[in-house]
Amino acid sequence: MIIVMSTRATEGDVDHVVERLAHDGWGAQVNRGTERVVIGVIGTGFPSDYPEHIEMLPEVESVTRITKPYKLSSRDFHPTDSVIDVGGVKIGGGCDFVVMAGPCSVEGREHILETAGFVAAGGARLLRGGAFKPRTSPYSFQGLGEEGLDYLAEARAQTGLPVITEVMEPGEVDAVERCTDVFQIGTRNMQNFPLLKRVGQARKPVMLKRGMSATIEEWLQASEYILAEGNRDVMLCERGIRTFEPMMRNTLDIAVVPMIRRLTHLPIIVDPSHGTGKWYLVKPMALAAAAAGADGIIVEVHPDPDNAWSDGPQALTPANFEDMMRALDAVVTATGRRLATAPATV
Amino acid sequence: MIIVMSTRATEGDVDHVVERLAHDGWGAQVNRGTERVVIGVIGTGFPSDYPEHIEMLPEVESVTRITKPYKLSSRDFHPTDSVIDVGGVKIGGGCDFVVMAGPCSVEGREHILETAGFVAAGGARLLRGGAFKPRTSPYSFQGLGEEGLDYLAEARAQTGLPVITEVMEPGEVDAVERCTDVFQIGTRNMQNFPLLKRVGQARKPVMLKRGMSATIEEWLQASEYILAEGNRDVMLCERGIRTFEPMMRNTLDIAVVPMIRRLTHLPIIVDPSHGTGKWYLVKPMALAAAAAGADGIIVEVHPDPDNAWSDGPQALTPANFEDMMRALDAVVTATGRRLATAPATV
Amino acid sequence: MIIVMSTRATEGDVDHVVERLAHDGWGAQVNRGTERVVIGVIGTGFPSDYPEHIEMLPEVESVTRITKPYKLSSRDFHPTDSVIDVGGVKIGGGCDFVVMAGPCSVEGREHILETAGFVAAGGARLLRGGAFKPRTSPYSFQGLGEEGLDYLAEARAQTGLPVITEVMEPGEVDAVERCTDVFQIGTRNMQNFPLLKRVGQARKPVMLKRGMSATIEEWLQASEYILAEGNRDVMLCERGIRTFEPMMRNTLDIAVVPMIRRLTHLPIIVDPSHGTGKWYLVKPMALAAAAAGADGIIVEVHPDPDNAWSDGPQALTPANFEDMMRALDAVVTATGRRLATAPATV
Amino acid sequence: MIIVMSTRATEGDVDHVVERLAHDGWGAQVNRGTERVVIGVIGTGFPSDYPEHIEMLPEVESVTRITKPYKLSSRDFHPTDSVIDVGGVKIGGGCDFVVMAGPCSVEGREHILETAGFVAAGGARLLRGGAFKPRTSPYSFQGLGEEGLDYLAEARAQTGLPVITEVMEPGEVDAVERCTDVFQIGTRNMQNFPLLKRVGQARKPVMLKRGMSATIEEWLQASEYILAEGNRDVMLCERGIRTFEPMMRNTLDIAVVPMIRRLTHLPIIVDPSHGTGKWYLVKPMALAAAAAGADGIIVEVHPDPDNAWSDGPQALTPANFEDMMRALDAVVTATGRRLATAPATV
Repeated sequence: MIIVMSTRATEGDVDHVVERLAHDGWGAQVNRGTERVVIGVIGTGFPSDYPEHIEMLPEVESVTRITKPYKLSSRDFHPTDSVIDVGGVKIGGGCDFVVMAGPCSVEGREHILETAGFVAAGGARLLRGGAFKPRTSPYSFQGLGEEGLDYLAEARAQTGLPVITEVMEPGEVDAVERCTDVFQIGTRNMQNFPLLKRVGQARKPVMLKRGMSATIEEWLQASEYILAEGNRDVMLCERGIRTFEPMMRNTLDIAVVPMIRRLTHLPIIVDPSHGTGKWYLVKPMALAAAAAGADGIIVEVHPDPDNAWSDGPQALTPANFEDMMRALDAVVTATGRRLATAPATV
Repeated sequence: MIIVMSTRATEGDVDHVVERLAHDGWGAQVNRGTERVVIGVIGTGFPSDYPEHIEMLPEVESVTRITKPYKLSSRDFHPTDSVIDVGGVKIGGGCDFVVMAGPCSVEGREHILETAGFVAAGGARLLRGGAFKPRTSPYSFQGLGEEGLDYLAEARAQTGLPVITEVMEPGEVDAVERCTDVFQIGTRNMQNFPLLKRVGQARKPVMLKRGMSATIEEWLQASEYILAEGNRDVMLCERGIRTFEPMMRNTLDIAVVPMIRRLTHLPIIVDPSHGTGKWYLVKPMALAAAAAGADGIIVEVHPDPDNAWSDGPQALTPANFEDMMRALDAVVTATGRRLATAPATV
Repeated sequence: MIIVMSTRATEGDVDHVVERLAHDGWGAQVNRGTERVVIGVIGTGFPSDYPEHIEMLPEVESVTRITKPYKLSSRDFHPTDSVIDVGGVKIGGGCDFVVMAGPCSVEGREHILETAGFVAAGGARLLRGGAFKPRTSPYSFQGLGEEGLDYLAEARAQTGLPVITEVMEPGEVDAVERCTDVFQIGTRNMQNFPLLKRVGQARKPVMLKRGMSATIEEWLQASEYILAEGNRDVMLCERGIRTFEPMMRNTLDIAVVPMIRRLTHLPIIVDPSHGTGKWYLVKPMALAAAAAGADGIIVEVHPDPDNAWSDGPQALTPANFEDMMRALDAVVTATGRRLATAPATV
Repeated sequence: MIIVMSTRATEGDVDHVVERLAHDGWGAQVNRGTERVVIGVIGTGFPSDYPEHIEMLPEVESVTRITKPYKLSSRDFHPTDSVIDVGGVKIGGGCDFVVMAGPCSVEGREHILETAGFVAAGGARLLRGGAFKPRTSPYSFQGLGEEGLDYLAEARAQTGLPVITEVMEPGEVDAVERCTDVFQIGTRNMQNFPLLKRVGQARKPVMLKRGMSATIEEWLQASEYILAEGNRDVMLCERGIRTFEPMMRNTLDIAVVPMIRRLTHLPIIVDPSHGTGKWYLVKPMALAAAAAGADGIIVEVHPDPDNAWSDGPQALTPANFEDMMRALDAVVTATGRRLATAPATV
């Protein structure tokens, strides 16, 4: 931690800072420059808000943290890539590129079985589908709840695809855990800390979506809540951030993929469906995500998007999905990797 | 709802839209312009995502909703201002300007009793203080929990000030309800829908902070979750939005105050502490909020901000608080209102 | 400047940085912490992009500048407030609060004379009006050009109000200088560096509007372009920034007023017309700006906003203007200042 | 144009709108819904700000434009892709993928000749390099000016690569036109309308970078300024937008590539150097741009980025450039296109 004093700081002001540091258990190295004094703080493990406190002392101009505010998710702490095993499907660490696909919401038993069938046939390796849905309006369809979870479990049994589904509150975690293979934490809940702690105590992997206006540092600190409770199987999912541009639902931040790779060992997935909100942008952005080095994508597919109960405009038809998969295979191969495929026996 | 067809739309495309509307139970009025066809949809009460579905039909260029996506919070529905009574303190509807003050976190019994004492003496009408704290890092102080609630209740008994405190998950609502007079829903939970529904079933008022990147429409839809469950005592709180500017913690959107007045009957409070993150900006922004017509403010005050356990840099000292109250009294009076003061008997 | 080495840096990496600094003429103080090495750079006057260069050296993790990237505009360099004299009207430094008013565009001779008459009668101290207009679309009205300047000069002669008008390119500066008292640099030209240099060589004051997505640091660096050419009469104007919120034209950043006061000696003006884009938000935001300590405001007034040639929706009618001025007088007085008024003899 | 009246509108209010439309020369079709009246306006060619004017009339709730605010750049107007020929290199319309490369600034004769040599050898088809540089600080290197243009011309003669360089003000256009093959308009000048008009009168192609907070609509309207003056050879360049994320210089909006394809016939180029600000993100984002369907990229390459006079941190070394080109060749091929290569005779 580096403390820069203002040009008006007196010796007394400097002493006051040094005494405060000593009181809190830290050493100080005082450097007197030509214009101002800079104090290096000796030690590690400062509370994450400690710089703010020092910044309030008289004539302190700025305080800069030089260590990252997250640890378990940091590549400094864990240099090699984490690989997550979801029912035999491996994600991260240069393993094959994984496609997760399915409808936004589970709309009924037939609906999810049919959709699961064609995404499995088309090459998806995980089935997505929402039973508990966070909707902006209380008057929108809120999901089938536990009934939806049962249908997902049946779809898994039929296709062999592991299931990923969203969990919205701590009290639902047990019910969801029984029926899912991966917990999805949605963008609105990235900083729902009681929920993060609760899935951190669960024994299934978690996919943590980026908050719609979360910085990369905040996202990694949120992952730290899960990791710190003991659950090390966390993957991150970029799903678009909120910007001033009205024409797309979100701005999909593809550059976060290689940046996340440098900072953390956790796998990174991209969601081009929510990331754009337009079905016709899903294929090009899926290809972009693969080209930029993502570990996989999660996309919305619906047998009849015109009549979907939620998010129809961003869902692929079965034919669009097949078309995307063909193009994706070529791009993934061009980058020296392979598209994950089902084992021959399934 | 207005549907604009593309310039390439054929008669068949137009018929397809009209048939879909009829199938869903709506009438259609087809207007053939010089360049394109526009279809007016006849009826009310469309699901909030219905426009998106129609937008997917072939050769539909855009769909515009002409009614607002919220109802109970709308001034169209409830033209006169709502006034919320919190233990005798009236908020909204041109009532006296209310100051809520206290520490970010309850740090201990002595700490909250001392702070409550001087904010009461200084003119605050509600006591704020966090027992359950949402913190970006899992390694930061997370609040005293139920112990903190007990201290708040004691501070209320001693000063006569009603208490506002944050609730973070549905499972905490009962415990918090016993000790608080107003539930605070924090910015990270504005779209925590299970929590909104749960406080909607409670019998105490709710202050709903704006999400850090929430549009005004999303914020009012979030308030609708609470109102729709039967709790009509909702007030809104602007606490700054996230922008590209790094120098302040948030950008405090003061213009939202008069805009919210036009759209809704709910009271509007401003939080200049979180809205700026700098104690030296709190006073000028408190005055700005009052001048723009807010119903009140909520500010952080701490007996010793240098040593606060959270958010010290934005807390006022007792002396700063007194100075702000004097200036606020003058500005509130200049706008033709009065600063709320305690009844003579307290 | 503080250089933080990565945890993987070797002695050789540290030596490489120190040698580079020495080669460029700077001293270095190497501090070996428990986890990493931090290098303090000794000296002042680094090029503003020097940190970026050092950041590229092997195993450098981050570089932090500890001096501000602007100088002439900084309060460190010039501690007392600058006061700008515009034809006898003093702006800044605690002088009386100044209202600049007039139409968005000069639409004709009668139009500007009439408008100038009633804004003068209503208490404005400067007349605003655009002759050269930056319009988003090439098909919108582009201003009357030099003819408009002549009308402004006539309005000044008639009312005694100094004139502020926009200049858009270096080649227009001479023509505008003959007819105006203050150059306005619009938001789209905040980083039009040839234009900034050119008005820096002129002999009339400049009002520099904040770029619609400019940080405070970039804005002050832009002012530095003007100051560095020798023109010290620069005032800043906050006019709203671009955010995700669609309901208002911009988000007016009122907190920038007290923040700018701390950083610079230059006067700060607020434009609630462009800052909101809605006439009904202009009065509350004008009051907020005054309460927050601005030196003045600039507002759009039009005799018949329904028929304005540009920006009608944000223009005040003469009656709205009078109403705002009354309320402003009360709020300015409540903050211990006075509203600037014309000398008795005019 | 569709006008929605408020629920409080009387017959008189409706008549007032219809009369105003008639007065301005437009027909009206009045639809009386169950809750409110909606008025369809008959005609085309409204001024771009006409909706704003109608919105001000009493009891008008909203006005929606149903035609786009740009025409010459619109795919409605010009359905087939435009192909731009730059000295024999074809850009757009499914032609081969074009790489433009070179240093941020021309630093000297040897420097640009050396850089031009290796980018030509590495497969670049245009040479980029700045002679007039827009720099945030007046104290940063401002470019070599006309001397730099001469060196660029020499580099072109030596390598056969056409040159793209930035022009910053109308008065420089003639000088730049003599030495360049493509005018670059930088992000800070996207709405420098006098400059856009001036290059619209020139006879060389223009690459228009997106403003750092420009919406897609504003960007296309800016291109309209150039097209409307008669210059039809305009290509667009996405170079990152400003968001809240501090870790990257900008957020590169890759989804704009397929979106722009739908809206306009103009070619679209991506700049991953400015779009990320980090050399290590340039390659993955170049691949992402190609996968998403861009017509080409523009990247910064420098023989010795550590010692570059500007933007070193985002420049590729010659080795990095070669590595990127190899990977790009594979991805471009995977998407069914080819990387543009120099004719055998050069």
